[in-house]
Amino acid sequence: MEVRIKILYTSICHTDLSAWRGVSEAQRAYPRILGHEASGIVESVGEGVSEVKEGDIVVPIFNGECGECTLCKCEKTNKCEIYGVNPMKKVMEGDGTSRFSTVHGKPIFHFLNTSTFSEYTVVDSACVVKFVSTDHSLSIKNLTLLSCGVSTGVGAAWNTANVHSGSTVAVFGLGAVGLAVAEGARARGASKIIGVDINPDKFIKAMGVTNFINPKDEEKPVYERIREMTDGGVHYSFECTGNVDVLRDAFLSAHEGWGLTVVLGIHASPTLLPIHPMELFDGRNIVGSVFGGFKGRSHLPHFAKQCGQGVVKLDNFITHELPLEEIDKAFDLLITGKSLRCLLHF
Amino acid sequence: MEVRIKILYTSICHTDLSAWRGVSEAQRAYPRILGHEASGIVESVGEGVSEVKEGDIVVPIFNGECGECTLCKCEKTNKCEIYGVNPMKKVMEGDGTSRFSTVHGKPIFHFLNTSTFSEYTVVDSACVVKFVSTDHSLSIKNLTLLSCGVSTGVGAAWNTANVHSGSTVAVFGLGAVGLAVAEGARARGASKIIGVDINPDKFIKAMGVTNFINPKDEEKPVYERIREMTDGGVHYSFECTGNVDVLRDAFLSAHEGWGLTVVLGIHASPTLLPIHPMELFDGRNIVGSVFGGFKGRSHLPHFAKQCGQGVVKLDNFITHELPLEEIDKAFDLLITGKSLRCLLHF
Repeated sequence: MEVRIKILYTSICHTDLSAWRGVSEAQRAYPRILGHEASGIVESVGEGVSEVKEGDIVVPIFNGECGECTLCKCEKTNKCEIYGVNPMKKVMEGDGTSRFSTVHGKPIFHFLNTSTFSEYTVVDSACVVKFVSTDHSLSIKNLTLLSCGVSTGVGAAWNTANVHSGSTVAVFGLGAVGLAVAEGARARGASKIIGVDINPDKFIKAMGVTNFINPKDEEKPVYERIREMTDGGVHYSFECTGNVDVLRDAFLSAHEGWGLTVVLGIHASPTLLPIHPMELFDGRNIVGSVFGGFKGRSHLPHFAKQCGQGVVKLDNFITHELPLEEIDKAFDLLITGKSLRCLLHF
Repeated sequence: MEVRIKILYTSICHTDLSAWRGVSEAQRAYPRILGHEASGIVESVGEGVSEVKEGDIVVPIFNGECGECTLCKCEKTNKCEIYGVNPMKKVMEGDGTSRFSTVHGKPIFHFLNTSTFSEYTVVDSACVVKFVSTDHSLSIKNLTLLSCGVSTGVGAAWNTANVHSGSTVAVFGLGAVGLAVAEGARARGASKIIGVDINPDKFIKAMGVTNFINPKDEEKPVYERIREMTDGGVHYSFECTGNVDVLRDAFLSAHEGWGLTVVLGIHASPTLLPIHPMELFDGRNIVGSVFGGFKGRSHLPHFAKQCGQGVVKLDNFITHELPLEEIDKAFDLLITGKSLRCLLHF
């Protein structure tokens, strides 16, 4: 039930960055091949694999879908009991070993079910989505975006929040995920999309965003500014930074009675939700969103079709392209906030 | 826009108890007439009041409904901008003074828009619900229950959680509110309703509850026991104690991917939700519920009709009845967990 993929393009997301830095205990398993956003071609398949074959265009997904477990069978969640996101996992599900060559006698570990910073990788078939080119009009480069960031952001707006036409939205953190949220909200017809970021360079890249707030330029708390701009608060706020103070701002910027905050950011340190239990009585709700609520194998082919039809505009997300050899430069571009997505090719 | 009500029956809830004890700063405004769950007859109405008249059977509601504000006009919330729950408020909305006589030159303050431990009280018309006896078959005694506890519990199951037939439910804290949650879940056809309380006397009163857990009898955490009993966790858990450790147990007893925890308990002390932001990624959601999500004036008459039809069984909630003079005894019954609701008459 395993698939060997020849990777054509891979890109870097903040999760790779924090794993590279070993921010949390779970991520410190070296040597390891990082990378989880990619596109490629099936090179070969193992016993039992019937859904993909050699030559198929695929993207690996870090949040797999076995299709058989209780969670996969429930429409309310995109979690999978076996192949869900698990930063602790570093070997294959089948036999508990690595598929990569050893280095100095040590195994090289897998990462997030995918390990895409590699000419070839092996993944479980539950973590592979096949795209048939007659079903969509996306380039393979753009398909790469569906492997993580764009699906995560657009899906948070569509599946998790269910943003409605005419609604107001605030997006905290304008990286690729935050901008994908804004793009998803724009596609749904949101009337006002407020982008919040301390890096003013992000603003010019923010196509769907209608209003900008730079917290450094504000004297009052950001949530108060947003309440002023939206007659009491937004319908939906999205936290894409992984900072708890920002999370509280996002929570308080939602309208009492019906506002919803969606958490997408990765909060690594031991901390609690910065919310008093009684504040839930104000009718502001908060939920988390993983991979935008998409069940990868079931939903992404249709999403690719929608992207191809221009429902969501993907062209502005890829800002750079480099050969894999220059991956350190790609990391620098991400760290300094200069890139949204830098594609790496082989 | 004010209504003077002759109170016929009033009862005591834990909110009165914590206000009596002055648990939080907001509650320390003395002298004050407590009490917020009651039924009565309109004695007279002030200028501008057209919806009720002298002789009408009414219940006062602490969570008013003006019907005109942005929140009242939205179907998603039962909050009201003007007459919502506000423990800081101690005077009438209209002129900022009290309607009660002074004592030793000091005004006697109002409480939660209602102040029902009194032969007569004055409330804003937004905080009065009229019941026409031809529309329902409830006794005035049972109508009293709709003023707070039963509406809060049943509504949390119906309106906030939307408990579905065949689902599994856990209720933490089996006071009147918790038992009303269980009764609401039973009415919706829940297949398993697990009651959790450290007072074993509560169990015999718990009609809708199908399974009991006394945390003192358990070696493992309660949420683990509940997960074992429900194939991974309940669909809905309800926290009716105001204790953050219990809140965490309730949260973790819900099933990953789709479980919902509803907070009804009053958490007075400065504390944060005992949840790490990343735990939201497990797909367990948490929301608060005030007055069961019922808009008092719009929804309670229909709810009374349903109660009269036996959809919800009210008969077991009133366990005691005493004259107002014995209110201290009624408080003792509540504190020692011997009563669900003790009606006080005049």
